[in-house]
Amino acid sequence: MKVTVSRKAHFNAAHRLYRKDWSDEQNDAIFGKCSNPHFHGHNYELIVSVTGPIDPDTGYVMDMKVLKDYIKSEVEDAFDHKNLNIEVPEFADTIPTAENIVVVIYNKLKKILTSEQSMEVVLYETPRNFVTYSEKL
Amino acid sequence: MKVTVSRKAHFNAAHRLYRKDWSDEQNDAIFGKCSNPHFHGHNYELIVSVTGPIDPDTGYVMDMKVLKDYIKSEVEDAFDHKNLNIEVPEFADTIPTAENIVVVIYNKLKKILTSEQSMEVVLYETPRNFVTYSEKL
Amino acid sequence: MKVTVSRKAHFNAAHRLYRKDWSDEQNDAIFGKCSNPHFHGHNYELIVSVTGPIDPDTGYVMDMKVLKDYIKSEVEDAFDHKNLNIEVPEFADTIPTAENIVVVIYNKLKKILTSEQSMEVVLYETPRNFVTYSEKL
Amino acid sequence: MKVTVSRKAHFNAAHRLYRKDWSDEQNDAIFGKCSNPHFHGHNYELIVSVTGPIDPDTGYVMDMKVLKDYIKSEVEDAFDHKNLNIEVPEFADTIPTAENIVVVIYNKLKKILTSEQSMEVVLYETPRNFVTYSEKL
Amino acid sequence: MKVTVSRKAHFNAAHRLYRKDWSDEQNDAIFGKCSNPHFHGHNYELIVSVTGPIDPDTGYVMDMKVLKDYIKSEVEDAFDHKNLNIEVPEFADTIPTAENIVVVIYNKLKKILTSEQSMEVVLYETPRNFVTYSEKL
Amino acid sequence: MKVTVSRKAHFNAAHRLYRKDWSDEQNDAIFGKCSNPHFHGHNYELIVSVTGPIDPDTGYVMDMKVLKDYIKSEVEDAFDHKNLNIEVPEFADTIPTAENIVVVIYNKLKKILTSEQSMEVVLYETPRNFVTYSEKL
Repeated sequence: MKVTVSRKAHFNAAHRLYRKDWSDEQNDAIFGKCSNPHFHGHNYELIVSVTGPIDPDTGYVMDMKVLKDYIKSEVEDAFDHKNLNIEVPEFADTIPTAENIVVVIYNKLKKILTSEQSMEVVLYETPRNFVTYSEKL
Repeated sequence: MKVTVSRKAHFNAAHRLYRKDWSDEQNDAIFGKCSNPHFHGHNYELIVSVTGPIDPDTGYVMDMKVLKDYIKSEVEDAFDHKNLNIEVPEFADTIPTAENIVVVIYNKLKKILTSEQSMEVVLYETPRNFVTYSEKL
Repeated sequence: MKVTVSRKAHFNAAHRLYRKDWSDEQNDAIFGKCSNPHFHGHNYELIVSVTGPIDPDTGYVMDMKVLKDYIKSEVEDAFDHKNLNIEVPEFADTIPTAENIVVVIYNKLKKILTSEQSMEVVLYETPRNFVTYSEKL
Repeated sequence: MKVTVSRKAHFNAAHRLYRKDWSDEQNDAIFGKCSNPHFHGHNYELIVSVTGPIDPDTGYVMDMKVLKDYIKSEVEDAFDHKNLNIEVPEFADTIPTAENIVVVIYNKLKKILTSEQSMEVVLYETPRNFVTYSEKL
Repeated sequence: MKVTVSRKAHFNAAHRLYRKDWSDEQNDAIFGKCSNPHFHGHNYELIVSVTGPIDPDTGYVMDMKVLKDYIKSEVEDAFDHKNLNIEVPEFADTIPTAENIVVVIYNKLKKILTSEQSMEVVLYETPRNFVTYSEKL
Repeated sequence: MKVTVSRKAHFNAAHRLYRKDWSDEQNDAIFGKCSNPHFHGHNYELIVSVTGPIDPDTGYVMDMKVLKDYIKSEVEDAFDHKNLNIEVPEFADTIPTAENIVVVIYNKLKKILTSEQSMEVVLYETPRNFVTYSEKL
């Protein structure tokens, strides 16, 4: 019997969508106002879910406080109030679209999983746009 | 590696639940106040999710602006401020329950998908009632 | 020392905005798609707030259960799953704009107040549009 | 063709996390402030989803009013304004973690399903922590 | 020119509504299931608003981080995961209704104000019930 | 009899909090991580409220579509996907704190008011931090 536990977190960051190897016209055609060279930003809302068996001793899939602290050290401290393009090494050569950000977060967080657990990560870029990544997709 | 991108939209509409081939008593027994012949209405909130591979050139599964515009032309312009029973052809012979509406929306929107993509549609009829359709169910 | 207690409620209804004494062209010019003769509808969310002194015996401004039940009998039972134009007498000669609805609700509910209490009513017509009425405005 | 219908409900309750067979030190080490012997509490938000075929006669997977009433009698009436540890028999020997509560709710509600239907239950313990159970996990 | 800055916070707690000097019948008649002797609980959501002039040097009415930290030390650390009746001295002789809790919080927090500032406190006991206190009421 | 009509809008932007005439140490001491020279950003949620008499001809305080379009042209088009410090002239010499932004928005929008109307503007910088400005404060 497996149960999923989910924890919400958030961070604020600036970014822009563009490729260095494209002209301004190409970047503008594909990314529109998201390629503004002066950056824009978002309040990113994050939901991290871990699915696994319930530990019969504690009634926990995973101690949510441990998950909360791990998200803080791996994601919130690394991304919050940062410029993703300039200050976060994972996006030095990767466009910080929501899709790429959610995969980066998944890869940072999956190390906490035991072999019986799996993870899904949801990232809201705005209240109306969000992305989801899990190995099961 | 597949990621899901999701976009929220909304429309307001009137509807009633009833079958022309049933008596008023039968309609009232099954649909209760939802069969009111003078109609009632809802603010429908819609979440459309597309799952597919990330395009390595753009970092996008799909340009969310394209998805947003497509939902607008196919669903919002067709349903918003309309009487679903009278003015929306898909419900001429189909009861506009939330279940039937979500399938109609799915069928209208799935044409945008490539062969590597799949879609899920969630429709909130009220803040406490919602329905979900995807081919995977 | 006065405190405000607030209670949320909701109802679903159909309506249209139009004046019988105007031509279709006039109604369309002023009310646009809201004047659709086949009606459209909303999930109305309601917040009723009562401000008054705390009763030292109970620690209550007003028993929230009493307020909840009063909102149910006066507003929810009267408006829910109804066509406001056709089935609610207060709108026989009054256009059911959000502004007029909130005043009608205020007038129905204010009878519950003691002389030391005042009331404010907020009505969400959609998640992005809402109106507020109180005697203090 | 299967569709999922979902209904939100809620209840307020007190609980504490601890094992009778552990010392206070052990309970505190594992459960922290959640093991407070004087209890603490939550507004639990519940989402129950039933997946199944649409009945061609009614356009319903399941009458949402029936589902709403069943959740009320099985869960809300049994848990609301209760102390889960002391007053709810299912937790006499089971720690009322969110994980264990969601499984208890699933087991109480699954009796309503037909052989073609399946159920998922989501339980929010706080706005930032929630758990999910379904047979498919 | 004055502006209001608002900060949300939250805590979880258990409580019961009853008067020691009333019989069980009296408590039950007035407080109903809220007087359950085994306690129940809530996720309290708090919004603290400070109104005052903008400091021309910083563009701040008040540093929100200072406000956040003050709410944490005065309210969250004092109330979170506590039994309000038993463990919070302010409710030793005061019924912990939402109305009384919001006044207690206001009195704890108002010490941070300068003479040019005023405060309003909103406390959600459930998503549908909330109370508001400010000196202006 | 006056009623308030409110409309929600939103924009995404990058900003940083700092004074050119302060050293980096001073900026860091006052503004902390908000003074990051590479910028960070937010999804700003805006609520604009207009209070005035109901027009007896239309039942409107103000046509919400007119208000929506005015907010779009004056605020959303001017601020969305922009760097407030670099690209928005109003912040050339004004620190873009939430307090200063809300006053700038108020001054841009108040021109729409008639002499019988007043305005309040609420700006959410994050889901937990927001500011409010109105002439009545």
